[in-house]
Amino acid sequence: MLVVMQAQATEEQVRAVCQKIEALGYRPHAMPGAQRTAIGITGNKGEVEAGSLEEMPGVQEVIRVSKPYKLVSRDTKPDTTIIKFAAANAHTQPVTIGGRDLAIIAGPCGIESRDQAFAIAERVARAGAQFFRGGAYKPRTSPYSFQGLGEEGLKIMAEVRDRFGLLIVTEAVDYESLDLVDQYADVIQIGARNMQNFSLLKRAGRAHKPVLLKRGIAATLEEFLMAAEYIMSEGNYNIVLCERGVRTFADHTRNTLDLSIVPAVQRLSHLPIIVDPSHGTGKRNKVTPLSRAAVAVGADGLIVEVHHDPDHALSDGMQSLYPDQFDTLMEQVNQIAAVLERGVQSPAKVQAKVRERTTIAVE
Amino acid sequence: MLVVMQAQATEEQVRAVCQKIEALGYRPHAMPGAQRTAIGITGNKGEVEAGSLEEMPGVQEVIRVSKPYKLVSRDTKPDTTIIKFAAANAHTQPVTIGGRDLAIIAGPCGIESRDQAFAIAERVARAGAQFFRGGAYKPRTSPYSFQGLGEEGLKIMAEVRDRFGLLIVTEAVDYESLDLVDQYADVIQIGARNMQNFSLLKRAGRAHKPVLLKRGIAATLEEFLMAAEYIMSEGNYNIVLCERGVRTFADHTRNTLDLSIVPAVQRLSHLPIIVDPSHGTGKRNKVTPLSRAAVAVGADGLIVEVHHDPDHALSDGMQSLYPDQFDTLMEQVNQIAAVLERGVQSPAKVQAKVRERTTIAVE
Amino acid sequence: MLVVMQAQATEEQVRAVCQKIEALGYRPHAMPGAQRTAIGITGNKGEVEAGSLEEMPGVQEVIRVSKPYKLVSRDTKPDTTIIKFAAANAHTQPVTIGGRDLAIIAGPCGIESRDQAFAIAERVARAGAQFFRGGAYKPRTSPYSFQGLGEEGLKIMAEVRDRFGLLIVTEAVDYESLDLVDQYADVIQIGARNMQNFSLLKRAGRAHKPVLLKRGIAATLEEFLMAAEYIMSEGNYNIVLCERGVRTFADHTRNTLDLSIVPAVQRLSHLPIIVDPSHGTGKRNKVTPLSRAAVAVGADGLIVEVHHDPDHALSDGMQSLYPDQFDTLMEQVNQIAAVLERGVQSPAKVQAKVRERTTIAVE
Amino acid sequence: MLVVMQAQATEEQVRAVCQKIEALGYRPHAMPGAQRTAIGITGNKGEVEAGSLEEMPGVQEVIRVSKPYKLVSRDTKPDTTIIKFAAANAHTQPVTIGGRDLAIIAGPCGIESRDQAFAIAERVARAGAQFFRGGAYKPRTSPYSFQGLGEEGLKIMAEVRDRFGLLIVTEAVDYESLDLVDQYADVIQIGARNMQNFSLLKRAGRAHKPVLLKRGIAATLEEFLMAAEYIMSEGNYNIVLCERGVRTFADHTRNTLDLSIVPAVQRLSHLPIIVDPSHGTGKRNKVTPLSRAAVAVGADGLIVEVHHDPDHALSDGMQSLYPDQFDTLMEQVNQIAAVLERGVQSPAKVQAKVRERTTIAVE
Repeated sequence: MLVVMQAQATEEQVRAVCQKIEALGYRPHAMPGAQRTAIGITGNKGEVEAGSLEEMPGVQEVIRVSKPYKLVSRDTKPDTTIIKFAAANAHTQPVTIGGRDLAIIAGPCGIESRDQAFAIAERVARAGAQFFRGGAYKPRTSPYSFQGLGEEGLKIMAEVRDRFGLLIVTEAVDYESLDLVDQYADVIQIGARNMQNFSLLKRAGRAHKPVLLKRGIAATLEEFLMAAEYIMSEGNYNIVLCERGVRTFADHTRNTLDLSIVPAVQRLSHLPIIVDPSHGTGKRNKVTPLSRAAVAVGADGLIVEVHHDPDHALSDGMQSLYPDQFDTLMEQVNQIAAVLERGVQSPAKVQAKVRERTTIAVE
Repeated sequence: MLVVMQAQATEEQVRAVCQKIEALGYRPHAMPGAQRTAIGITGNKGEVEAGSLEEMPGVQEVIRVSKPYKLVSRDTKPDTTIIKFAAANAHTQPVTIGGRDLAIIAGPCGIESRDQAFAIAERVARAGAQFFRGGAYKPRTSPYSFQGLGEEGLKIMAEVRDRFGLLIVTEAVDYESLDLVDQYADVIQIGARNMQNFSLLKRAGRAHKPVLLKRGIAATLEEFLMAAEYIMSEGNYNIVLCERGVRTFADHTRNTLDLSIVPAVQRLSHLPIIVDPSHGTGKRNKVTPLSRAAVAVGADGLIVEVHHDPDHALSDGMQSLYPDQFDTLMEQVNQIAAVLERGVQSPAKVQAKVRERTTIAVE
Repeated sequence: MLVVMQAQATEEQVRAVCQKIEALGYRPHAMPGAQRTAIGITGNKGEVEAGSLEEMPGVQEVIRVSKPYKLVSRDTKPDTTIIKFAAANAHTQPVTIGGRDLAIIAGPCGIESRDQAFAIAERVARAGAQFFRGGAYKPRTSPYSFQGLGEEGLKIMAEVRDRFGLLIVTEAVDYESLDLVDQYADVIQIGARNMQNFSLLKRAGRAHKPVLLKRGIAATLEEFLMAAEYIMSEGNYNIVLCERGVRTFADHTRNTLDLSIVPAVQRLSHLPIIVDPSHGTGKRNKVTPLSRAAVAVGADGLIVEVHHDPDHALSDGMQSLYPDQFDTLMEQVNQIAAVLERGVQSPAKVQAKVRERTTIAVE
Repeated sequence: MLVVMQAQATEEQVRAVCQKIEALGYRPHAMPGAQRTAIGITGNKGEVEAGSLEEMPGVQEVIRVSKPYKLVSRDTKPDTTIIKFAAANAHTQPVTIGGRDLAIIAGPCGIESRDQAFAIAERVARAGAQFFRGGAYKPRTSPYSFQGLGEEGLKIMAEVRDRFGLLIVTEAVDYESLDLVDQYADVIQIGARNMQNFSLLKRAGRAHKPVLLKRGIAATLEEFLMAAEYIMSEGNYNIVLCERGVRTFADHTRNTLDLSIVPAVQRLSHLPIIVDPSHGTGKRNKVTPLSRAAVAVGADGLIVEVHHDPDHALSDGMQSLYPDQFDTLMEQVNQIAAVLERGVQSPAKVQAKVRERTTIAVE
């Protein structure tokens, strides 16, 4: 159920409708848009009855949403969500995900040491990334594989933010790690294996930081959006979706990167969507071509694995780019973005060289 | 791990790859063939990371070979695991999962009320089930769907055990619910969506009750066994695997029930494996034929959804059998089991009629 | 479009309706059932207009079929199709596919020599098979693999029929081979790779022998039935469907055998359906368990690869049973069939030993 | 081929497997590892058949290793194949597929009439396509759907070539149609459903025109390349591969377009590869984004469905672009191509405007 307010509705009227919804035993979600406010209604009593909401001052209409998702839908909020981040440190500027320009997240699969993190962060920052990725809690198929450094890894990433001006994206795998990630990082990643871990999604919905939600390995578009709906239904509206490849019979890549989901999401939902070509292909030599394709199809950004020494990486060595390869990727991605009249954000106030490179015209 | 060289690779390139493998701390085994050379890699440091081998001059591809699971493997423990359960109440006898005779788990998708649970339990016990299933914590695709009664549901199931002599199987979805399930139930179910929720698997590995681990919707055999390995690696060796259908392109059933995994698991692992034809097909009229097939292929048991009033079930009504249909299923399954020289366990000391029908004594 | 005649309609009335349909420019397909005749209408002008058909004497109703298939549908012909075969030689009796008792087809993947064919035929006949399979035209993934003996292979199989009393099932891959198979064999097999080779299907629809149509490796139920519809629309109503595994992400078997399609087909179509556990699993050690499951789920028969010397088989050695394993399979299948109140047909007038075995009671 | 022994296999068992391999005429290479022994197998008799190796005592599994394709491989021919076409008429220039610049094929799904073909051809030629596609023989799922105009359609397309300077691409579905297509058209298309119709592939290998081979709906990369190998093994070396989407569980597009196969093919084979975003998505609104992505990933061209009146198209109306949309597609594709230092070929000697826009001369 969705209450659409009139364009000229006052804040007071919005508040009154919300109070009415609460009085009926449901939960209101006011979402101010460019022109008008819409109020989503959720509740655990099954169907919501419209009652007298439609008669209230400032209400334009009450829509019974047939699709199972509500809050994530463009019906609810026609404008694309732009998630705003404060500057990572004093030398950088604020950045966004979902705006005109692309967001680039890069870094190692797992944080292995302070030296490793710094070596990689230095290179990806220089190449023009705005976000640093790195796992402190690694969901590994085998219990005998490297499981991450835990809080120690989070602390190293916090240092990376201060020193290199990169915002931090890292995965949470349970309540404990989610609380710590919420504290240390800038974006809480929910991995593909946990896309339908509904308890964790709800907890992420009560966190303070934006959530990067990866598509499950066999998730339909509807299940993907419903997972985001779980998070939003708890009050956290800052969600970035991420396509990272799905499982098919094809065996020439680790997963099959399904780029068609990018325009499909953009049609149905207001949430931004980025692409992970590293997990999406599982092969280093396919990351750059598929990064170009992801930007060309219209993604709002990329998340890419980069390692300065993949031979000795404790995880995902086969799919991590060398820093030089990442430089090339950034150059190509900048040019493709320009064709779509987008750029790659350049947060660093002093990174003049990078900024020049990102503003290259196609001709 | 195996490195396949290109046809035109030089001896020097082969030597370089071997040296690289040694430098990584492993042992190379070059095998020249008629057309090309392959290089095997072994090592005692666990998993081998391919690193940059695939990028070296002359290399065509890198193939992974060795099996990563240990505790679940028949190599480790040749005898099939038999999980023993004490009698559910004073009127019944002990039962097993994994032994000569089949284990049958039946009940509603979700516990909706005491009356509903009792009505169904009475019928499935009479038909010869030994275990009662029912969800108190339901992982639903939508946050707006019925999420289960929580601890209240667990208490109802504990009453079912006392009154009907049925052992209780119910799902845990996070730490909190796992601790409660461990306390109230006899078997902790880990659902398909959480098969790679490694935090939850580890917690289940520290629980006191056996675990029923469902195959993830797109899990390979290896991933399935590795999920069990996670539980075992924490010390809980009582695990029952459960095939419940996988996601494919086929649309005549909700999932595609992959019965071939039953002999495949039995070949590689000592763990018992049962089949869920209800989720595996998603259609009431296919549950009984596929139950017969599951027993015929060699499964150690079944988990079946039964509801006395499926039209008004709060979840999965379309795939729940009517109690009369479950009676028929049990008769047919008993006869198929007899062909394989197995029976269906009959725990009730007083259920003389049932025992006659199966013509097989439990002890 | 489907014309359902009254139960008491005369043959003359049926003929009159058919003539009317032809006069309208369409093609009638009269299908006499146990109680009444239905007349399917096909044509290449797109939609069929009912015109005055409904007013004709003897017509009960005209049904606009919403499903895209007509002739294969149970709506058109409620009784299951039973395909009748004359005795293979003087020592055997007639057999059927689709009747109460199961049909068993067995033999090597490819016919390699007269000696090989005879050695295998002798064993599968003794074990109780009624049909002999063997490829003379092999659709191989590689042009460099053994492609079959061609007409020479067909001649060998004709000898097998005479000598061992086995009916012959063999694959046609193009017009030329189809014409020859139609001449030499008893059943024309259309392989999975040709399930949507519509030119070949139409040609098979004009052949004189029944067609065994294998499900394509990624065919939906609807596509599978539509392929049969192609054959029937040309006038050949004797079709046996065959599930032989579909392609999924699962890698523990060569294909994923989708047994749920058996009851799904039986619900929608009157055509018989059998199962191929050899291609369906691709692994010898899984053929017997899945054969049991196929019979338990309700299949009308099996097609199984058997080779007396799989080590030296020119194709599919890994999935061929040894003759002794096939003996065991037949014993188990007989017992499972008995549970469903079916038997395995025993065509040989003199094979007393086999007949005794097939009549084993479950208890 | 690689035999992996069990952990507890004895030296005697290893020796027995090696002797067996030798007896089969191959060469064993035993590689003892820390935990288990693996035995490599090589031989110069082509494919190795595993036979009964998997059944021997101590054997865990048998893994296939060597690549079966030869003529399509870059090992055989390191330089990318460039297929050269003479000018379509006196007003155009020669074009290529597989060279520096992209080839664009556009037109309706099926040829419906001379007027329809001309109306569409005029627009796609003006927009910069070099090839005209259109089906005269349509492989339709239903025998009751429009099956194409046959030779009449081929004649219309020959007129299109003369009048608009477009080279003709059209599908052959059997020997008869292949001979006619070979006579009238410039490129013989083999559709996805016939990718493993080996008889047709061999016939295409004896034709005089280049072949456009579409990937089967569930074909692996290896099967795709082997299908091309069939054509090449008969002497026709002019093959263009075409990715057109594969079948997966995903339901937001008709097929899942697998763009990662483009760099995968380019790594293993010298054959050019193009992309079909129309069948690859099945939805008009996704054709342009995925066309951009296909060019960005490195494809050698596109094949796109365009119809001047999709609402009344006899097939595939939902996925056909309007001519204006195709204009936009061409503009965007030109710009993306420029980023990769490629252009779109401009065959028309007089299409000055198009040439200016791409800023790239054809010669």
